[in-house]
Amino acid sequence: MGKISLAQYLFTRLRQNRVKYMHGVPGDFTLKALDYLKPAGLQWINSCNELNAGYAADGYARVNGMGALFTTYGVGELSAINAIAGSFAEHVPVVSIVGTPQRQLQRQRLNVHHTLGDGRPRVFAEMAKHVTAAQAHLFDENEAPEMIDEVLTTCLRNSQPVYIDLPCDMVAKEVPASRLDVPLNGNSAISKSVRTTEALLTKIHQRLQNSKQPLLLIDSGHGVRGLSKDINSFAEKSGIPTLAMPSGNGMVSHSLKNFYGVHSGPVGRIDTMPYVGASDLVISIGGMFSDTQTLGWQVVPDENNMIVMHKDSIRIPGEPTAKIALERFLPALTESITPDTWNRPDATSLGNFRDFRPTIKDANDHIDQENFYLYLNEHLRQHDIVLLANATPILGGRDLILPESSRTIASGQWFSIGHMLPAAQGAALAQWQSRKDADRLNRSTTDVGRTILLDGDGSFQATAQELSTVIRYRIPLTIFIVNNSGYAYERHIHGLEEDYNNLAPWRYSESPFWFGARDKSQEWSDYPVSTAKVETWSDLGHVLNNQRFTDPRGLKLIEVIIGKYDVPTKFEQVFKAAGEKLG
Amino acid sequence: MGKISLAQYLFTRLRQNRVKYMHGVPGDFTLKALDYLKPAGLQWINSCNELNAGYAADGYARVNGMGALFTTYGVGELSAINAIAGSFAEHVPVVSIVGTPQRQLQRQRLNVHHTLGDGRPRVFAEMAKHVTAAQAHLFDENEAPEMIDEVLTTCLRNSQPVYIDLPCDMVAKEVPASRLDVPLNGNSAISKSVRTTEALLTKIHQRLQNSKQPLLLIDSGHGVRGLSKDINSFAEKSGIPTLAMPSGNGMVSHSLKNFYGVHSGPVGRIDTMPYVGASDLVISIGGMFSDTQTLGWQVVPDENNMIVMHKDSIRIPGEPTAKIALERFLPALTESITPDTWNRPDATSLGNFRDFRPTIKDANDHIDQENFYLYLNEHLRQHDIVLLANATPILGGRDLILPESSRTIASGQWFSIGHMLPAAQGAALAQWQSRKDADRLNRSTTDVGRTILLDGDGSFQATAQELSTVIRYRIPLTIFIVNNSGYAYERHIHGLEEDYNNLAPWRYSESPFWFGARDKSQEWSDYPVSTAKVETWSDLGHVLNNQRFTDPRGLKLIEVIIGKYDVPTKFEQVFKAAGEKLG
Repeated sequence: MGKISLAQYLFTRLRQNRVKYMHGVPGDFTLKALDYLKPAGLQWINSCNELNAGYAADGYARVNGMGALFTTYGVGELSAINAIAGSFAEHVPVVSIVGTPQRQLQRQRLNVHHTLGDGRPRVFAEMAKHVTAAQAHLFDENEAPEMIDEVLTTCLRNSQPVYIDLPCDMVAKEVPASRLDVPLNGNSAISKSVRTTEALLTKIHQRLQNSKQPLLLIDSGHGVRGLSKDINSFAEKSGIPTLAMPSGNGMVSHSLKNFYGVHSGPVGRIDTMPYVGASDLVISIGGMFSDTQTLGWQVVPDENNMIVMHKDSIRIPGEPTAKIALERFLPALTESITPDTWNRPDATSLGNFRDFRPTIKDANDHIDQENFYLYLNEHLRQHDIVLLANATPILGGRDLILPESSRTIASGQWFSIGHMLPAAQGAALAQWQSRKDADRLNRSTTDVGRTILLDGDGSFQATAQELSTVIRYRIPLTIFIVNNSGYAYERHIHGLEEDYNNLAPWRYSESPFWFGARDKSQEWSDYPVSTAKVETWSDLGHVLNNQRFTDPRGLKLIEVIIGKYDVPTKFEQVFKAAGEKLG
Repeated sequence: MGKISLAQYLFTRLRQNRVKYMHGVPGDFTLKALDYLKPAGLQWINSCNELNAGYAADGYARVNGMGALFTTYGVGELSAINAIAGSFAEHVPVVSIVGTPQRQLQRQRLNVHHTLGDGRPRVFAEMAKHVTAAQAHLFDENEAPEMIDEVLTTCLRNSQPVYIDLPCDMVAKEVPASRLDVPLNGNSAISKSVRTTEALLTKIHQRLQNSKQPLLLIDSGHGVRGLSKDINSFAEKSGIPTLAMPSGNGMVSHSLKNFYGVHSGPVGRIDTMPYVGASDLVISIGGMFSDTQTLGWQVVPDENNMIVMHKDSIRIPGEPTAKIALERFLPALTESITPDTWNRPDATSLGNFRDFRPTIKDANDHIDQENFYLYLNEHLRQHDIVLLANATPILGGRDLILPESSRTIASGQWFSIGHMLPAAQGAALAQWQSRKDADRLNRSTTDVGRTILLDGDGSFQATAQELSTVIRYRIPLTIFIVNNSGYAYERHIHGLEEDYNNLAPWRYSESPFWFGARDKSQEWSDYPVSTAKVETWSDLGHVLNNQRFTDPRGLKLIEVIIGKYDVPTKFEQVFKAAGEKLG
């Protein structure tokens, strides 16, 4: 078997695991390795800064199943560490590769630039340990391929970021290529005996059999994001009334009869709490029960009635947590259940979330958030991916009625401002990649899904330059910026009239042309750029029905002017609960 | 003595130490504390994201002597941690305050948003420890004032960032105000006996007496930035030939006869190495000898001949490092030296850096970097602060001839891309503040210094939105963007023709209007905004001599188009040396 360079080994492993786009910013300690991307079949996506690159890798990984980030030592990796922490918290498999100085310089603790200058060359790796599931320090070419395989396997199994430290003098070291013939196995390693699995299944059967009012509560955390198909099968066969947490919307098909929408409790269109509170058995899968999406834990089901499933564990009330591999356990559960023998709960109180329509009196009325998200529903299509910014859109997301194979991407734990514009860049790339893969395989691409970002003005400002990356690589994307002249989410928690919740007035709708898009007269034929600024329903309708907008190619940016204080009455309860938590 | 809220205590302490502007981004865990800023005499400066806020606080602190950053738990503090690490590496006194969740929620390890969701509420504080000099966790109101005083004292003494963790339920706790009557003492605590000091002085005297070719080498690291006056006194009285490291330019007055410019060795206009290499005694003050500014350590003086002074230590060759307080030791040294009795070294080889003028053949020629920085010299004024971006301007900075009381701000260790635009915002605020302080005290303000940023296009893209903060608060600033269509610094190290060193084409010169500036027809009378895009010397001269440009008020942004591959021949040696270090 031949030898290849260590960089090529690493990048080939990534490519084998569906990673086609590498996000990052070049730095001197990464430059040489960048030359190995193309030969391994990867394309470099140059973000404007490393935090944006980290967010983009996160968005890419959420859709693709693995993402990768390449930053330079010290300055680059620390700039991105907040994105890595978010991927860690929300179980997104991102491989964070850091180009570090020559081994010799590190060993001698020399005063290399991008160090703290105090003889601690390894301090950044120490910091990364707190927010990554495994670390590989590629200081020895004899061990490096195995180390790479181990951390990539952990990345897939835990669905969490891992850290790879690649000294620049290791890039070209030759290593055997032979390991590349054996694909990595990202499935959980736990080899439960048939007997243990049987025992767990039996216990769940009993509880299901005895339950009068069961509930299936689905989220996207704890590594279950990739198990949507298995979760849908279980939901469908079991017929158990099913709800999604806000950050899990789209994990279950909205066409499923026993799916009842997003669990927002009293702040939802339909109050789901009467059913959830009275439920005697909740099966929670991948639940992220942070205060933000549970009205300060008010709507978290009683844990004494809750079976908690994560990708690698299950907790049945009153019993110790057991290690499982959910990707094998859940199909076994689906196979073994006998729903015909169960009680049929009365789910009337959960109503039908599909029935809601916007109530607009006059098309010349100003757009308000009470109706905006409902209004968008009729414009969503199959396969659309809708990203909800950490701003009022995470609340508006409760109103989305998703067509088949459409899904949302939303934070459930980390909620970092500015996350979603770069994440949309990454998600759109992944969507584009699967479209191109489909083309190559002559699969049908008639239903072209779009990537749609619902952003806030404050969050857009945090990472705005990433729009330029979207344009540079001609990535198809649709962006709505909800412009309410400030940090509306914060404004309603505290400081309604305070200047610290205001923002500088930007010309959002002109931004693509400023960030590198061509004017209409010279526009790229494969990448039309359309922008609009809308204030009324009539404006919005005009834009959404325009052919330039419905064209799936290119970039669309719609600035939606919303009243400074406009939030639906029910959202105010969210802010009140959040404010109370501030002591 | 009365009681005041803990937040007011903290903010009053900051105000007592010249902090007038607090940088940050609001978050739910900081909102309530923000209300206490104004009563304590502080103004909130709302950056677009936390990394930018951290850089701005760094720039502010470099000019003001202390800066402060206020971010929210987890997401906010990790976004800013790269800026904090930079302040740590380059000894900039920034107080990093983090608004954290209620103590009770932390103690119970509840699933609060912005945590990792894994029951480790203190993990971010652990990460901050690596890059801050001291930490205060304000969990007990009885201990809090003393803890605040201790970390702020460390911040001043070490001239390094400190971390203050302010749980949101502690903000309004009442604490005694009495400690506020006693000012903090930021001087080094070391109480060397007269005898030890005498012994050190005597040793230095002997070495100076015996030296045939002494050198004074000045930088801004290791806490000496605030000791510029003492350093100048020593340089002046001693008459020792003096050079500045690139990141220390402006620490010593350029009008001093024995000042010979920037020590760039063979890549300087005048090669300083023949003198430095033959020097038998180098007194280095605050030196940051990272590879980047020493041609890969080629121009670092022989450490066997070097007395190394930091703010809190001195190392005489062949002896153990001694703790000193340089702010007391250096004046004592100046007082005690007898330069008349020393040898007069021949400094002819150091030439006269003041003699260089741009060599422009035709005013219609394109601007090149060989001449650009020299060309700017005639437009610099007293009290100007010139920030050099981590891009080709850090190299061009060698050519600056600074008028009296003018100085540069440049990285010598950390070199983080994008640092200097936000830092310029902060530096300009500090400069503005001292101007207003002067106004208030009826001091002369006829010599209004400007803040001038020499940025690169790649670095501008990294943190571009901070321009909007500059405009929002109407901060006077002059920006030159050296636009050479890519990461020129990286391009010349490796990958001259590679796409990873290219950038998206932005409309830089239009950016202020996009980021919130008013059009000329409606412009603020106190804040004129002028922009230009220049390609030739004639264009540049026209702009620099225009009255709108010479007006010290408002914002000026000049995009300077430079050839994609244009770098002075001597810079190429820098890139070659850097490339070789990549193994």
